[in-house]
Amino acid sequence: MTHGAKTPIEEERLDQTFAALSSSTRRAILARLVNGAATVNELAEPFDLTLPAVSKPIKVLEGAGLVRRGQAAQYRPCAIDAAPLSEVATWAEQYRSVWEDRLDRMTDYLTWLQTGGLPR
Amino acid sequence: MTHGAKTPIEEERLDQTFAALSSSTRRAILARLVNGAATVNELAEPFDLTLPAVSKPIKVLEGAGLVRRGQAAQYRPCAIDAAPLSEVATWAEQYRSVWEDRLDRMTDYLTWLQTGGLPR
Repeated sequence: MTHGAKTPIEEERLDQTFAALSSSTRRAILARLVNGAATVNELAEPFDLTLPAVSKPIKVLEGAGLVRRGQAAQYRPCAIDAAPLSEVATWAEQYRSVWEDRLDRMTDYLTWLQTGGLPR
Repeated sequence: MTHGAKTPIEEERLDQTFAALSSSTRRAILARLVNGAATVNELAEPFDLTLPAVSKPIKVLEGAGLVRRGQAAQYRPCAIDAAPLSEVATWAEQYRSVWEDRLDRMTDYLTWLQTGGLPR
């Protein structure tokens, strides 16, 4: 397994992306935005949040580059930018061999138990 | 796209996993552990950290279930548990269609803004 060497700036961006994703409200907002851009009002409704309360997670997502705001003065609609999520997927995929190996070892162990658990 | 409905406990675990991954030192410790279990001493060395300084990120990783400690009284070696990382990969993969469609969406969005950005 090779961990692609990352620059400090790339590391900092990953820090920010992971931090932004560490809240279920922020993840739910992203999930909502997959259906299309939405105004802050539209986002507040399903979450039963006041406008100031929904503005905070949106700002965090915006800071991490996961949400872009339109320029239309009145609405400034929010849209998802999934580019940082592709980086998260790539980063996590580096560990696939580790978690697959874990399942293999578990399967080996269960097979061993089923065959009577004799010394291997 | 369907976002697999998650229980509050699963959401909380994802919160914890993402929070644990939001530090480049903690990610570097995980990368090191892919090569095999290591004692706290062995982990401290490459990071040029004191024992107390390296113990803190290890505790955070342990709390998120990303690191398991052995029971050997003196050394208590640290090992990676990549299971939460497979959940991160699965979660991020849900957005693949979004980042792949990113250019299409951006075009749609710009067109929408050009037509006045009215609520749809």
